[in-house]
Amino acid sequence: MKVSKEHTTFEITTNLLDSIQLHIEAQNDTRLQDQLNELHYADIAEILDELNLDQATYIIKLLDSETTSDVLSELEDDVREKVLENLSPKEIAEEVKELDTDDAADLLSELSPERKKKVIAQIDDKDLVADIQELLEYDENTAGGLMAKELVKVYETWTVAGCLRKIRAQAKNVKRVHSIYVVDKEDKLIGRLSLKDLLIAKNETKITDIYIPKVDYVHVNDDDEDVAKLMAKYDLEAVPVVDDSKTLLGRITIDDIVDVIIEEAEKDYQLAAGITQDVDAEDSIFALTRARLPWLFLGLIGGVGAAVIMGTFDTIIEDFPLILLFTPLIAAMAGNVGVQSSAIIVQGLANDDIKGSINNRLFKEMLLAALNGIILALVLFGFVWAWQQDMQTALAVSVSLVVVIIVAGIVGTFIPLFLHKRGIDPAIATGPFITTSNDIFGILIYFIIAKFILNI
Amino acid sequence: MKVSKEHTTFEITTNLLDSIQLHIEAQNDTRLQDQLNELHYADIAEILDELNLDQATYIIKLLDSETTSDVLSELEDDVREKVLENLSPKEIAEEVKELDTDDAADLLSELSPERKKKVIAQIDDKDLVADIQELLEYDENTAGGLMAKELVKVYETWTVAGCLRKIRAQAKNVKRVHSIYVVDKEDKLIGRLSLKDLLIAKNETKITDIYIPKVDYVHVNDDDEDVAKLMAKYDLEAVPVVDDSKTLLGRITIDDIVDVIIEEAEKDYQLAAGITQDVDAEDSIFALTRARLPWLFLGLIGGVGAAVIMGTFDTIIEDFPLILLFTPLIAAMAGNVGVQSSAIIVQGLANDDIKGSINNRLFKEMLLAALNGIILALVLFGFVWAWQQDMQTALAVSVSLVVVIIVAGIVGTFIPLFLHKRGIDPAIATGPFITTSNDIFGILIYFIIAKFILNI
Repeated sequence: MKVSKEHTTFEITTNLLDSIQLHIEAQNDTRLQDQLNELHYADIAEILDELNLDQATYIIKLLDSETTSDVLSELEDDVREKVLENLSPKEIAEEVKELDTDDAADLLSELSPERKKKVIAQIDDKDLVADIQELLEYDENTAGGLMAKELVKVYETWTVAGCLRKIRAQAKNVKRVHSIYVVDKEDKLIGRLSLKDLLIAKNETKITDIYIPKVDYVHVNDDDEDVAKLMAKYDLEAVPVVDDSKTLLGRITIDDIVDVIIEEAEKDYQLAAGITQDVDAEDSIFALTRARLPWLFLGLIGGVGAAVIMGTFDTIIEDFPLILLFTPLIAAMAGNVGVQSSAIIVQGLANDDIKGSINNRLFKEMLLAALNGIILALVLFGFVWAWQQDMQTALAVSVSLVVVIIVAGIVGTFIPLFLHKRGIDPAIATGPFITTSNDIFGILIYFIIAKFILNI
Repeated sequence: MKVSKEHTTFEITTNLLDSIQLHIEAQNDTRLQDQLNELHYADIAEILDELNLDQATYIIKLLDSETTSDVLSELEDDVREKVLENLSPKEIAEEVKELDTDDAADLLSELSPERKKKVIAQIDDKDLVADIQELLEYDENTAGGLMAKELVKVYETWTVAGCLRKIRAQAKNVKRVHSIYVVDKEDKLIGRLSLKDLLIAKNETKITDIYIPKVDYVHVNDDDEDVAKLMAKYDLEAVPVVDDSKTLLGRITIDDIVDVIIEEAEKDYQLAAGITQDVDAEDSIFALTRARLPWLFLGLIGGVGAAVIMGTFDTIIEDFPLILLFTPLIAAMAGNVGVQSSAIIVQGLANDDIKGSINNRLFKEMLLAALNGIILALVLFGFVWAWQQDMQTALAVSVSLVVVIIVAGIVGTFIPLFLHKRGIDPAIATGPFITTSNDIFGILIYFIIAKFILNI
C-alpha cells in the first residue's frame, strides 16, 4: 500500500511550496522547470492555487503553453480569472490553441466580451475559431456546452485500409480515440466502429460491412445531467452529439461527465445541508456567510413563527407548562422525518426511479410514517408517564408525535414532487426549507392536539 | 430535443410490460426475443426488475447467455439473488463465462460458498477459473475488488508490427482497449502506450522506443474511493493495478469508477438526511423503516434529553414561561448551523481539501459563526422587543443565540474532523447526529444564559 501511495497520489507539502517560492524569487527558471515538468498538470494547478497571483502568473508564463493550457483548465475558478487578467490576449490565444475545443470554449467564456474578441482575433487557425465560436453559442448546462469538436469520423464508403490512413491523420488532434463515428455522405451519424474492430478487420473490408448501426447519441440541446445519466447507465466512455437532422457535431467524453456527476452530487449535498452556491472549506468567511446566512434566516423566521404560534395558546403556557418542555422534541422529530422522506424522493427523482402516482407515493409514506410514529410514540408515552406520572401530558405528547410524524412525512414527500412537477430542482426542498416548515406545522399540530386532550 | 429523446433514452411503459407479460404467458418465444433483442441489456434489466420472479427467470433462460450475463450484472441486488436461486450451477456457469472477470467475480461473490464451488466446477476454462478465484480474494472496496483481469499487455522488446498482431489476439477478450500496458520480462509495469500511438507509429519501430514510461497506477489494496479520486483528478479512463513488486495484475475502467462515485455520493446524501443502508423510494416499508427508525430514535432521545434539561430549570418554567417559547428557535438554529459546518468539513475531507490544523479550522468557524450569529441575534432582539416589550427576555434570547450558534459551529466542525482522525467515515456526523447533540447543547446553554440574565 505504501509503495503505491508514494507514487500515485500527489500531496502538496510545505517543503515543496517553499522550494518553488524560493526558485521564483531567485528567478531560478531551469530548476523550476525541472521541478514542475515532473508533475501532472492537475498537480501543478493545485500548487498554483496555493501561490499568490504574481507567483502563479510567473509559472504560467515560464512553462510551455502545452502544459499551462491544461493547468489553466484545472485551476480554481477565482484563481484562473485573476491569472487570465494578468495575461495578454496574445498569451491567452497561445493557451487556447493548445486546448481541446471544449476546454478552449470554457476558458474563453470566462472572459469579458471585449477580451474574448481580442483573444479570438489572435488565433490564426480559421477552423479552430469557427469550432470555438460554435461551442460558445451553446448553454453550458447542455450537451453542446460539454462537447468537443475533436473526434474521429469516417465515411461508410471507405475501406479499412483507407480508414486507418485517414484516422492516423485525424487522430493526431484527438487526445483519446474512443469510438470512430461512421457518417453518410451528408455527415449524418449512422453508426460507430471501435478502434478494436478496425484493428481486427482485414484491410480491404468496407466500413459499411463492419460498422455497428446501433449507436447511442445525444442531442446538442440535451441537459447535461441527462447526458450523465445516459452515459452512466449504458457505461459509455464517449457519446456523439448530433443536431435535429442527426448531423454529427461533436462528442462528449466520460471525464467531463465525471465532473458533472461530482458537481451535481456536491450541490445536492450542500443544498440538503442549507448551503447555497458552490463553496468549500477554504473559501473566505464572507463567501461562506453569503452561502449560509440566507438559510439561517429562514430558520430564524421559522423559530419566530413557532414562538408566535405558541404565544397564542396562553392557557397552555400558564396552566400546563409541562407541555412546553416537549416542543423541541416535536419540532426535531418533524424536521428529521421531513428530511428523511424528502431525501428519498429527491434521490429517486434524480435516478428516474419514482414510479406510480403521487397519491400512491403519499399513501406509502403515510403508512411508513404511521408505523415509525407509533413505535416512537409508545416509547415516548412510557417515558413521560414514568417521569411525570401525568397521563394527560403523556397522551398529548405521544398522540401529537404520531400525527406530527405523519404530516411531516407527507410534507417531505409532497414538496419535492411538487417542485419537480413545476420544473424546479427538488434538491432545494431537503434541508432547512423542509425542517423550518415542519417545525411550524409540528408545533401548531402539537398545541391543537394538546389543547383538545387537556380539555381547555 | 424530442427527436433524440425518443431514440436515446428508454422508458418502461405499461404497454411494453403488458406485451412482454402476455408473450411470456403465451410462451411466444420468437416474438419475445425479437422485442428484447432490440433493447440494451441495461434496459432489459430494468424490465426484469419490474416482472415477477418466474417471468424474470423465463426471460433469462430464453435469451442467449451473452445478453443475459450483462442483464444479470445490471439487475437490482435482491432481484438478481432470487433469479440466481432459480438457475442451476451449470446455467450460472454459462453466464459467468460470458462476463468480464470483474463482473463474474461480483456475481459469484453473491452465492453461498457451496453454490460458488458448484458453479466454478462447471467452468472448464482453467485460466478463467484462476482469474476469478484471484479476484474473489480481494476486498470488494479495494482496487482489487474493482479490477478486471482483461487487459492488453505488450513486452517492451516487441516491435509495433508484432504488437499489432498480438493485440489483435488479446483484444478479442477485451471489450474496450483504453491503454496498452508495457511490461518488462518479469511482467512488471514499466509504462503505457495508447492505441493511437501504435496506429501512428511505423511497423518496424520497437515498443521500447515509443512507450510512455510515466504511467499512473494503483496498488491492488488501495481503497476504491482513493482510486476514484485519482482517476477523476487525472481524467483517467482506465488505470492499471499492480502488487507490491509492481507486477501488473489487472485494470480498472472508468465505468466502474462512475458507479463508485455515484454510490458514495448517494450514501453521503442519505447519511446527511438520517438514512442508513442503501434504500430507495421503491423499497418495502419494512426496509425503509429499518433504515430510518434508528435515526429517529436518536432524535427522540435528544428531545427527551432536552425536556429533562429544561425540567431542571423550574424557576424559569414557573416565572418566565416566555423563555420557553423560543426553545424550538434555539434548537433549530443550533441544528442548522451544525449541519452546515459539518457538511462543509465532510465535503472538504472527501475532496482532500482540508488544509491547515484543526485549531485554525475551529478558529475560522468560530469567527464565521460569530458573524452569522450577531447578524441573526440583532434581528431577533428587535423582533422579541417589538413583540413582548420585554428587554430581559429579548436580551436572554439573542445573547443565547450568538453563543449557541458559535458552539454549534464548533461542534459541527470538530466532530467530523475527530471522526476522520479516528478512521471513522465523517459522513455519519452530518444530519441527525449533529442536530441532536446540538439541540441538547443549545437548550442547555440557552437556559443557563437566561437564568443568568434574568437574575434567578
